[in-house]
Amino acid sequence: MGAGSGFGPANLPFGVARIPGQRDPRVVVALGEDAVDLLVLHRHGLLDSQVDAAVLASPTLNPLLAQGPEVWRTARRAVGEVAGATASDLPAGALVPRSALALLVPLAVGDFVDGYGGLHHATSMGQILRPDAPALQPNWRHIPVAYHGRSGTVVGSGATIRRPRGHVLVDGTPQYRPTERLDFELELGYVVGTGSEPGSPVRADEADDHLFGVVLLNDWSARDVQAFEYQPLGPFAAKSFATSISHWVVTADALAPHLVAGWTARQDPAPAAHLRTCRPGIPDLHLEVLLQTEAMGRAGDPGVVVSRVDFAAAMYWSFAQQLAHATSNGAVVRPGDLFGSGTASGPDARRQGGSLMELTWGGAQPLELPGGEERRFLRDGDSIVLRGWCGDADGAPKIELGEVAGTVVPA
Amino acid sequence: MGAGSGFGPANLPFGVARIPGQRDPRVVVALGEDAVDLLVLHRHGLLDSQVDAAVLASPTLNPLLAQGPEVWRTARRAVGEVAGATASDLPAGALVPRSALALLVPLAVGDFVDGYGGLHHATSMGQILRPDAPALQPNWRHIPVAYHGRSGTVVGSGATIRRPRGHVLVDGTPQYRPTERLDFELELGYVVGTGSEPGSPVRADEADDHLFGVVLLNDWSARDVQAFEYQPLGPFAAKSFATSISHWVVTADALAPHLVAGWTARQDPAPAAHLRTCRPGIPDLHLEVLLQTEAMGRAGDPGVVVSRVDFAAAMYWSFAQQLAHATSNGAVVRPGDLFGSGTASGPDARRQGGSLMELTWGGAQPLELPGGEERRFLRDGDSIVLRGWCGDADGAPKIELGEVAGTVVPA
Repeated sequence: MGAGSGFGPANLPFGVARIPGQRDPRVVVALGEDAVDLLVLHRHGLLDSQVDAAVLASPTLNPLLAQGPEVWRTARRAVGEVAGATASDLPAGALVPRSALALLVPLAVGDFVDGYGGLHHATSMGQILRPDAPALQPNWRHIPVAYHGRSGTVVGSGATIRRPRGHVLVDGTPQYRPTERLDFELELGYVVGTGSEPGSPVRADEADDHLFGVVLLNDWSARDVQAFEYQPLGPFAAKSFATSISHWVVTADALAPHLVAGWTARQDPAPAAHLRTCRPGIPDLHLEVLLQTEAMGRAGDPGVVVSRVDFAAAMYWSFAQQLAHATSNGAVVRPGDLFGSGTASGPDARRQGGSLMELTWGGAQPLELPGGEERRFLRDGDSIVLRGWCGDADGAPKIELGEVAGTVVPA
Repeated sequence: MGAGSGFGPANLPFGVARIPGQRDPRVVVALGEDAVDLLVLHRHGLLDSQVDAAVLASPTLNPLLAQGPEVWRTARRAVGEVAGATASDLPAGALVPRSALALLVPLAVGDFVDGYGGLHHATSMGQILRPDAPALQPNWRHIPVAYHGRSGTVVGSGATIRRPRGHVLVDGTPQYRPTERLDFELELGYVVGTGSEPGSPVRADEADDHLFGVVLLNDWSARDVQAFEYQPLGPFAAKSFATSISHWVVTADALAPHLVAGWTARQDPAPAAHLRTCRPGIPDLHLEVLLQTEAMGRAGDPGVVVSRVDFAAAMYWSFAQQLAHATSNGAVVRPGDLFGSGTASGPDARRQGGSLMELTWGGAQPLELPGGEERRFLRDGDSIVLRGWCGDADGAPKIELGEVAGTVVPA
């Protein structure tokens, strides 16, 4: 079952879903066009007894994550064994068509840290916003610069994004009104599995065991609001209205064969010891951004790919380094904490930008779309879909991250 | 019972504690030198039946807060009735000496938003850090500027504070080492009771019902780390290592007779409509900061008051305005969310500063302490205690916030 699909036995990502006929949400693992209900496996003795049934009938993955890597690996292995069986050998209800699931936001995010680890993104943003100064701030190559985002507004794929209002400068005067510079940001989200101890920094080369898996992440941003508010405490209302994540958490184990060192092997200057690691830690992902305008949707057009990004070439800082920095002051991370990679952009901002800021160079060069439309920033009715995968048909089995979609609705 | 104490019948703050002989933590209400175990009242029919017993045997106040104002007001009223009884009339175990309690961090903080709403603090910080520019940024009088802090490192009074390491500039070169500019920040913490709906901003004049109560809050800060990291995304590792809050949450109901309009009645320019309110919303609190060095502690000296602050005179922005701004983009707040007021400082930075940055003017003018000691920033072994109260012996009953204490231990 599922062989050859991006959700085949090499992937086996975790999610949480309402299953028709079941009262409580269930932890599920995608397998091809189906999903496996882990609680059904458990009840039929197909999961190791160390897995606590209570964590499998939960509205989030957090209780499973808190059980530790042995438990979630055991659960994933059991699904791998199911993948080798024929459907008729499985207990009734073990397999559910994915199309029948109502997928939920899979995490109760404790702390959400959003990074800024994309070299081309940070460089372009500096050039656009501060054209007379060096593009990168003096700290950028020394620490994986980050800020805390709002965990309470992390939403799932498919959630509508209401255009936020905010304070923006209009002819030099601040006014509270709907943003006119609504943007997306293409990111990977890293999900913490095992937490850390208070006062015990995690070095980058010890970080592997703390990563449960990854999701696609869209850090929606109101650029005009951000410009007015961000000094001196950073972005706040410009980003806190919504952060969308994909429903399936692709595990670190699934990504392990697809890790590369990328920039982290050639960072200059070499970072401080606790940030240094020689382990390949960047998933070799292909990412793309699909934009569907309201007019395209009416015409049945699925939309147009506006950006294609090689994630490993985009990211200067890795998750291991982000975690090491976030805990370097003794701060604790908890199961279910979420780290955004920062926007992933390639060197060609017009074709590989991870945001409209880059694709339109700050709104100066509109994106020309099929059908005569153009975009500087998002309009009401626009949908953005982020997609990601690694491997390809000729090499290792393809691993799909799936997608995270969101449609802008009026303020 | 309790009359005349800052924890008397006019106060009745909520906490969570381990009680000797009880397995699970309990929700308790302070009453004079004692605390009332609400679950015992419930079991003896002394609480309205609408209060769910499960929320009273909980490690945090969050489940009680989620029940809504009617429930928590009912619980507090019941304790008010107990206060009129004599101890012998009460069920066994209803009253526990406060000295016997092991108080816990009373909240599972979802999102922690830290403000910057103190006029004198923001002005002084601007003068110290950017002496050649206007002290306040152009946005400061238009929006209650804020950032998201780390909820996972909110700790309770008495927690030790390990001196954080971080990246600081040494002769122009970034090095990872223990901070040499460790500071405190004197703040009030506002605890959200009733959450908001996604996409539904709460106007400042509708904010009252969302405030459950207040705590004292120390936003520990590493100034040298902050200076290196904060561009362009704001403070991160300089503050995320620890935020201390006091154990007793003093309710908005207890503070209601002590609210004043303060600066919010004379803000210039007038803020946008959703931020405007004519309700008095700033608690008329007296705050003070006690510093006890290790040497003082050894000599049995409880320490010296280094700052006294009139909270209402310090704060330009109110909680109602902070909540209105945080939700103005449609973001949701949840029960147990925490808002820091921002550092509260009076106009005389050397006597009324809410941080050592102000009290020593950026470290330039050391604080001279009894016994010949001096401080620019905190040393290992130093303890900081923040205290607060409102009313006085001759007027309305005094309301004590209690204290939040923390001792610095070596990196």
